[in-house]
Amino acid sequence: MTIDPRIQASFDRQSMMATLGAQLIQAGDGSATITAPILPGAMQQQGFGHAGLTFSIGDSAAGYAALTLIPVHQEVVTAEIKINLLAPAKGDRLIARGRVVKPGRRLIVVASDVYAETDRTERHVACLMGTMMPVDL
Amino acid sequence: MTIDPRIQASFDRQSMMATLGAQLIQAGDGSATITAPILPGAMQQQGFGHAGLTFSIGDSAAGYAALTLIPVHQEVVTAEIKINLLAPAKGDRLIARGRVVKPGRRLIVVASDVYAETDRTERHVACLMGTMMPVDL
Amino acid sequence: MTIDPRIQASFDRQSMMATLGAQLIQAGDGSATITAPILPGAMQQQGFGHAGLTFSIGDSAAGYAALTLIPVHQEVVTAEIKINLLAPAKGDRLIARGRVVKPGRRLIVVASDVYAETDRTERHVACLMGTMMPVDL
Amino acid sequence: MTIDPRIQASFDRQSMMATLGAQLIQAGDGSATITAPILPGAMQQQGFGHAGLTFSIGDSAAGYAALTLIPVHQEVVTAEIKINLLAPAKGDRLIARGRVVKPGRRLIVVASDVYAETDRTERHVACLMGTMMPVDL
Repeated sequence: MTIDPRIQASFDRQSMMATLGAQLIQAGDGSATITAPILPGAMQQQGFGHAGLTFSIGDSAAGYAALTLIPVHQEVVTAEIKINLLAPAKGDRLIARGRVVKPGRRLIVVASDVYAETDRTERHVACLMGTMMPVDL
Repeated sequence: MTIDPRIQASFDRQSMMATLGAQLIQAGDGSATITAPILPGAMQQQGFGHAGLTFSIGDSAAGYAALTLIPVHQEVVTAEIKINLLAPAKGDRLIARGRVVKPGRRLIVVASDVYAETDRTERHVACLMGTMMPVDL
Repeated sequence: MTIDPRIQASFDRQSMMATLGAQLIQAGDGSATITAPILPGAMQQQGFGHAGLTFSIGDSAAGYAALTLIPVHQEVVTAEIKINLLAPAKGDRLIARGRVVKPGRRLIVVASDVYAETDRTERHVACLMGTMMPVDL
Repeated sequence: MTIDPRIQASFDRQSMMATLGAQLIQAGDGSATITAPILPGAMQQQGFGHAGLTFSIGDSAAGYAALTLIPVHQEVVTAEIKINLLAPAKGDRLIARGRVVKPGRRLIVVASDVYAETDRTERHVACLMGTMMPVDL
């Protein structure tokens, strides 16, 4: 599937994604998917992926889901987002799937689920729910 | 001020903190402070600090605030946390101040405020409120 | 469908539900459904249902979803819950559908969606995500 | 202290507040205070105040705190709000103190703390953090 160059370019400007080894693998029609390895440099104290890693890709997946639905002269910024952590982030890689729950001109309500994949089996490790705000470029 | 070696050791195991250049500068009596530069590798698409950076140090500051209040045979993990972003993360460095709102044997409610410092002036960029769960080592 | 008498009895002890005219219409297998009219005494300042009404039934639906999965010697209490309001609460009645996202012995992560029904058409008015804590009776 | 008649009138239109026996006792300069008894009709299943009661006055206190800072041709609506419950709502009455954390033209970040008062001693029972959105009347 092809990703809109405008969305890919925005993702590529997020240097945090490169630092975390994250890739945008799908974006369109109010959803977006980001994958990331659990790099040695992204751990918490017990050797699992840091909540900040899970949050970063979950938040970005939600943001790019929103970006697929707004006019080209706008970007989105996160107004607020909450994460519930369900299980340790361990495995071969993380997969964050974001989606728009409710589009809007002023606010876009979004959600995201993050899974840890091990031997092609997915485990649900976090869910996020938040609000994106469109801003003019 | 001296930081409890057990807390410093836990922080040092969080490789995410090293990746972000973060330092634990205070921890004790239900509070903790973490500072971090806004590294070139921690940006969002507009060139400000990524929400994942602000979140990571805000979450960790809240977690270490909780850790100061629990028995030595326990660690804490984040059960859930919400972040409201108030202003772009730009400036010389970020400062995250975490505190325990309500200690508890089963759950510890925590909060954190993140500031961006520019020329020694602080701007409030985010507030977090969440729940830490003590777990046996 | 029959509702477990233990769950119905718990619901009947929630006098807030009676005050709001709410009814438990389904509970089992990690989900629960509550309906409520938008009573004249449950309005906000613009004449729509108060966020507290939407919250109350959304929170209770999530709680009873959790209760269906725990041992009979336990109850659940809400540790935390977040609500995103998507549209005004107006129409013939509200329907809150709660579900367990992740069961657990110490914490149960739950979600709930609230809809406003008008002429048998549903509109999504709120989504909630939270944490229930099992407690011994 | 005198409450701005516009704010009192808005509060008086919130029939949910009357149903809960709630009173607006202060509003001005980015803060507001609401008190409420724990009425027999506002209980959860264990005989404590329902989370929906605590939420309702906490949310409204935060909303009126925001209303003190916006132009007279606008109202506010809750976009989202999260509540962490710290202790059972029991005692002589509840007191919700709302405040503006960050004013804004598009979004107003707010917080609220709810206390249960028994024999003039207050116990912290909940904290809320959320987002209000100004809307034209």
